[in-house]
Parts: sequence; structure tokens; C-alpha cells
Amino acid sequence: MNIPSKLIEDAVTEISRLPGIGKKTALRLALHLLKQNEVHTEALTLALTRMRQEVQYCKKCHNISDGEICQICASMRRDKTVICVVEDIRDVLAIENTNQYQGTYHVLGGVISPIQGIGPEELTIESLLERVSLSQEDEEEPIQEIILALSATMEGDTTSFYLAKRLKEKGIKVSTIARGIPVGGELEYTDEVTLGRSIMTRINYSTE
Amino acid sequence: MNIPSKLIEDAVTEISRLPGIGKKTALRLALHLLKQNEVHTEALTLALTRMRQEVQYCKKCHNISDGEICQICASMRRDKTVICVVEDIRDVLAIENTNQYQGTYHVLGGVISPIQGIGPEELTIESLLERVSLSQEDEEEPIQEIILALSATMEGDTTSFYLAKRLKEKGIKVSTIARGIPVGGELEYTDEVTLGRSIMTRINYSTE
Repeated sequence: MNIPSKLIEDAVTEISRLPGIGKKTALRLALHLLKQNEVHTEALTLALTRMRQEVQYCKKCHNISDGEICQICASMRRDKTVICVVEDIRDVLAIENTNQYQGTYHVLGGVISPIQGIGPEELTIESLLERVSLSQEDEEEPIQEIILALSATMEGDTTSFYLAKRLKEKGIKVSTIARGIPVGGELEYTDEVTLGRSIMTRINYSTE
Repeated sequence: MNIPSKLIEDAVTEISRLPGIGKKTALRLALHLLKQNEVHTEALTLALTRMRQEVQYCKKCHNISDGEICQICASMRRDKTVICVVEDIRDVLAIENTNQYQGTYHVLGGVISPIQGIGPEELTIESLLERVSLSQEDEEEPIQEIILALSATMEGDTTSFYLAKRLKEKGIKVSTIARGIPVGGELEYTDEVTLGRSIMTRINYSTE
């Protein structure tokens, strides 16, 4: 593609750095902004700049927040004795949408991935361990359980394994969300690893 | 989706105004920018702002350009007696990529679409007619042919029809790009309208 304008070419280059956006889509977006009134571009760039400069992270759970402590950590209705460990804010939103969970969160900011150069120290793991230690000294609301809700990928499993090991040293109950066939999923189309795991980790009706 | 930060929500709203980007993708892009170093967001917003504020349109053909006259109109190698009329700059790029066309262009900036409220006066049609008139006075390089290269949609055809009518009043040769089965396309899978048209507008081998 030989764009006859350096200005557009620069914009296309920058837009196409975003994940999942190629050169063609970037050009389409750039031309869309050019066609629209100038205020649209101004509103977009202002919103992006403000977001990048002013957004804060909750000091407790590292979730994105407009203040020092996020709404979930600040809420009196949430169960502070349970922490659900997730990769990023999208997972928080997904779990919140289920309306099934009343505890708090801890956002890791990623998963351990040696290929991408992400080790445990790049994540908020130390902060999680500290949170657990602090709560154990505090007799009112000590943390009872840590639920690991990471993706069922190699990196997610590695991170879960690492976290479980570190957390067990503190003598705290660690659980992980169930892996199995999705609700509505048909048995014959489920891949063998998932099916195998769902048999291994079967739930006993009588004790439930 | 209940995003716990007004700043991110604003950014997501603005990003999702772009064509083909929904709320979920917008959130993914916003979180990507948050994860990246701040310079990436700065580079993106600067490129967009500069593009929107500084880009110019060629005074002759309305193609996007960094100067008053675009590279194609300014080039000595291009045949100034043929003008190819297209909808927007993407079509110019597509035709340039074929390496088959040596004439100049005229960018309409859209097609006539009563539903979207786009009439002939919103497009650069008057400017095209003026270009033709001016060239007819100029004895050196009068325009010989106008090639209409608009999409084979209802709006594209309406615009072609309108342009052909207006241009014929000027006594200039008007042609349109061929509609037919694509190269590599199989006859049996071609829709009936295209196939019908390709039979009606068949090319005579002997006179070619």
C-alpha cells in the first residue's frame, strides 16, 4: 500500500500497532476519522490521553479504579474473607456479570509466561502474599480462601501451580475454578483433555 | 458491562464509535494501551491529531495529499486526458496497486445515498464538471475520457448514472469499469445478476 500522505501513513502505522488491527483496518479507521467532523478525533484523543494519564489502580487488589481503593474493595457488602485471583480487569468484569461471586478480587496483571519474558516478579504476586499475611494478623476478617480463576492455558496453569505452592506455605485454603464441559456443551464434541479432566475432577452428588 | 472506571468507560465509548469496533473490542484496545508504556498512547494520539488537523486535499482531484496538488496530479508521467472517478482514496490505492492505469483520478468523497442524506452537492461532482470545462478550453491537454469506477451497488450505480448524464451534456466520452465474473471465479457459483450482466456486456473478440 502506497499511501500518498505521510500524515495518514503515520496515523495508520500507530493505529495498526493496536492488537488485532492490521494496515487495512487502520487505513479504514483513519479515513473514517478524516470524513467525520474534527470534534470526533479530538474527543477520541482526549479520552485516550486522560485515560492513560489519570487512571489509577486499586491499592488493595490492583483492579482499575478512579480512586485509591476500587468500588469492590470499598464495598461493605462484599465478603473480604475470599479473594478471587484473576489475570486482568476483563476477567473481573466477566465474573461480576455472572452475579455468582460476592468476594473480592486480586488482579495479577498477566500470567507467568517465560516466552514473553513475564516472570512472577512482573505480576502482583508479592502484593497478594502480603495481603494474606496482613489479614492473618488482623483477627476480624482473616482471608479464608483464595480462588484461582486463571485461563485454562499452559501459562494460566503454570501461574496457578506457582500461586498454589506459595499460598499453601501460608496455610491458606486454595481452590481453582472447575474445568469441565461448558453448560450446553455436547459430550461428543468436547475435546479429550477437557473431557478427561471433567471425569477426573467429577463432583460427588451425595457430598455436595 | 459495568466498567469500574469512568476514565476507561469514556475511552471505550469513544473507541467504539469507530466503524466495526464494538464495546468489547474497544475495552480490549483500551486495556492494551494501559498495559503499554505511556509513549505508545502519546504517539497514537499525536498521529491522529496531526492527521486530522494537517491533512490536505488535492485541489485538482480531491485525493488526500500532503501538499496543494497530489503526487499523481503533479506527475509528468500520468496521462492527464483520462480521469478515473472513484469513491474514496482506498479505491485510488486499489487501482494504483493494479499497475494498469496511467491516467489521473477524481475522488468523489462518497456516493449518492438518499438514505444517508448524501446528495450530489455533498460530493465533488461540480468540481469534476468544472475540471472538464476548463480542460475543454485548454487546447493542449483536453480531457478525452472519464472512466467511472464506482462500486457495483445501488448507490454506486445511481451515482454512475447521474454522472454519466451530467458528463454527456459536456460531450465527453464516459465509460464504466466492466462488471462480470471475477478472474478465477467459477461460472456456476456466480450470482444470476452478475452472470446476466456479463452476458449482456460481452466483449467481442474480433473487434478487441
